[in-house]
Amino acid sequence: MDVQVTQENLNKALANVARVASSRSTLPILNNILVKTEDNRLRLSATNLDIALSQHIGTKVKKEGSLTIPARLFQDFVSNLPKTTIRLVQEDAKLHVTADNYKSTINGMASDEFPVMPSIQKPQKISVPTTYLKKALQQVTFAASSDEARPVLTGVLLNTIDSKLFIAATDSYRLAEKEVVKTDNQTKLLVPVSACQDLLRIIDESEGSVEIEFDRQQVKFTVGDAELVTRQIDGEYPDYKKLIPTKFQNKAAVLKRDLLSVTKIAGLFSRENAGSIVASVDDATKKLTIKSIASQVGDNISEIEGNTNGSGDITLNSRYLIDVLQVLDGDQVEICFNGKLDPIVVRDPKESSYTHIIMPLKS
Amino acid sequence: MDVQVTQENLNKALANVARVASSRSTLPILNNILVKTEDNRLRLSATNLDIALSQHIGTKVKKEGSLTIPARLFQDFVSNLPKTTIRLVQEDAKLHVTADNYKSTINGMASDEFPVMPSIQKPQKISVPTTYLKKALQQVTFAASSDEARPVLTGVLLNTIDSKLFIAATDSYRLAEKEVVKTDNQTKLLVPVSACQDLLRIIDESEGSVEIEFDRQQVKFTVGDAELVTRQIDGEYPDYKKLIPTKFQNKAAVLKRDLLSVTKIAGLFSRENAGSIVASVDDATKKLTIKSIASQVGDNISEIEGNTNGSGDITLNSRYLIDVLQVLDGDQVEICFNGKLDPIVVRDPKESSYTHIIMPLKS
Repeated sequence: MDVQVTQENLNKALANVARVASSRSTLPILNNILVKTEDNRLRLSATNLDIALSQHIGTKVKKEGSLTIPARLFQDFVSNLPKTTIRLVQEDAKLHVTADNYKSTINGMASDEFPVMPSIQKPQKISVPTTYLKKALQQVTFAASSDEARPVLTGVLLNTIDSKLFIAATDSYRLAEKEVVKTDNQTKLLVPVSACQDLLRIIDESEGSVEIEFDRQQVKFTVGDAELVTRQIDGEYPDYKKLIPTKFQNKAAVLKRDLLSVTKIAGLFSRENAGSIVASVDDATKKLTIKSIASQVGDNISEIEGNTNGSGDITLNSRYLIDVLQVLDGDQVEICFNGKLDPIVVRDPKESSYTHIIMPLKS
Repeated sequence: MDVQVTQENLNKALANVARVASSRSTLPILNNILVKTEDNRLRLSATNLDIALSQHIGTKVKKEGSLTIPARLFQDFVSNLPKTTIRLVQEDAKLHVTADNYKSTINGMASDEFPVMPSIQKPQKISVPTTYLKKALQQVTFAASSDEARPVLTGVLLNTIDSKLFIAATDSYRLAEKEVVKTDNQTKLLVPVSACQDLLRIIDESEGSVEIEFDRQQVKFTVGDAELVTRQIDGEYPDYKKLIPTKFQNKAAVLKRDLLSVTKIAGLFSRENAGSIVASVDDATKKLTIKSIASQVGDNISEIEGNTNGSGDITLNSRYLIDVLQVLDGDQVEICFNGKLDPIVVRDPKESSYTHIIMPLKS
């Protein structure tokens, strides 16, 4: 290999790719990045066996080649170089790197043993505008479970219903669903939440679309010059649609900023009670009251004025309420509930494409 | 107690004071902050038994009182309140906190058992302009040792010689000394480095002076409305002055920015060798060369053009060189050395008040 790249391009690509390699794997080559010339570009790839991330960089290729080199050293090194042209010359399993007055040799390993993700067979395709996909992932992924005991809940569902793509996640305590875009392609993919988080990191604000290709086992997301390949999760996703209530006995519409602030404070006083807080709507005073359950550290009660319907109270986890309030865009938020055991809906009245429900706690 | 304070003042004071209390102490009251009315002000205090930090806040005192309450909860709570007036009302060991629509009760402990630092007996005094003290501490404290095996080296020395106050620290591998200010007061104080770090955090950029009062055991630093009291370290500080070389066979003057960049890069390749790098001055080429010692990961060599005297090389710890380069202000830096075992001086030619030496490594 003998190629030239700019420091900016190489640094940006390494920032994306090296993160995937940085797991302390027992297989040493997984700590490395595969550096490979391909179609007059340079391709950097890393994998942790669950997902594989690649990024292409425009380059002048004088001589083809490939090898793997330690991800962290390469990234730290390149990020400290000045914004100049970097020349990479391979000599067996060594990479000579020169830039201005800097000369380095990085000892790598041959690329033969670098694991290759199986390619996608007869792929189906769907295309989603980048900004829509980014927003949906931001609003949904945090609701997925991290508990491997129920693998399907550690996935994020990409599902088309009536020619609309929905993205959804639930950990069985809360559920988030976003209607993303109209599409004619039929999709039902269950993507590991960790892959969705990596995908979020490589999606920038640019225009254009993310191309999604998949077969029965794998999914590939192509975002500009980057590709992310992940396995799908096996299993039947719960039929969550029927859980979403549509009518409510109690409702309060308040300023989101106010609700976020009082929920954070009530949560501080509920740490010993797993974050339990009680939300009360009172149609007589037109107030939403948030209170912590009295504990060893003390107690807290706060009131917010707003529009209310009905009177009643419900117990829920303050952490979950904070999570959803932080991904809603609007100034106003509605908190809607029925009986003590029925799901609570938290929504922005102006954003009907996003649905969020929280299961109440026993009070 | 029945007092009113602004959220801004209380929040700022808690940010300073709570840090000292946040050690996971086995003595529960040390996790608390003492809240006490005093001379028509509110005084917040915390201690970890090594140091005690207090801050006064202007307040309307309706009723005197004192109690201790959990530092972290109080700080998190106040930082989430809106910028408004907060009323604190004591009821035995409980503190009722009200602000706008927020009502909380924090369960505390009586103030009787809160440890009081011994007061300073017949104090001697010295006054140092705030900006000078801040700069000196920033340039010196990092050179102190964290190894309790030699307690004196975990101290920062405040010492007057010939009517000048010097602040110095050494871990025996490197030494930093700053000439701070002329003074007629005789001082020789050995202050724990942890107290100096806390002091740095509460010194802001404001004009004025830090008042230092001390007896044979304790030192008190008064910075605006804050007071920090610490014990002194016992023991004889090494006579470091004689270690500082004044003549050099080899010298290179280069751009600090360049030297910092190449040293960081060489350090990356020296992680296995405890950060060892070799600096070479060559009077024939007028270059300073920094190279890592070849290791399993690879090797690196970089050149910087500059003004040179003599020709020779020396091995040193890249981490130490980075540390001192980061606290020098000027654009230019000189690296000066003699024999393989003699101390290396790193200095800003325009800042004669600051001296830094690094002991070389065996090559």
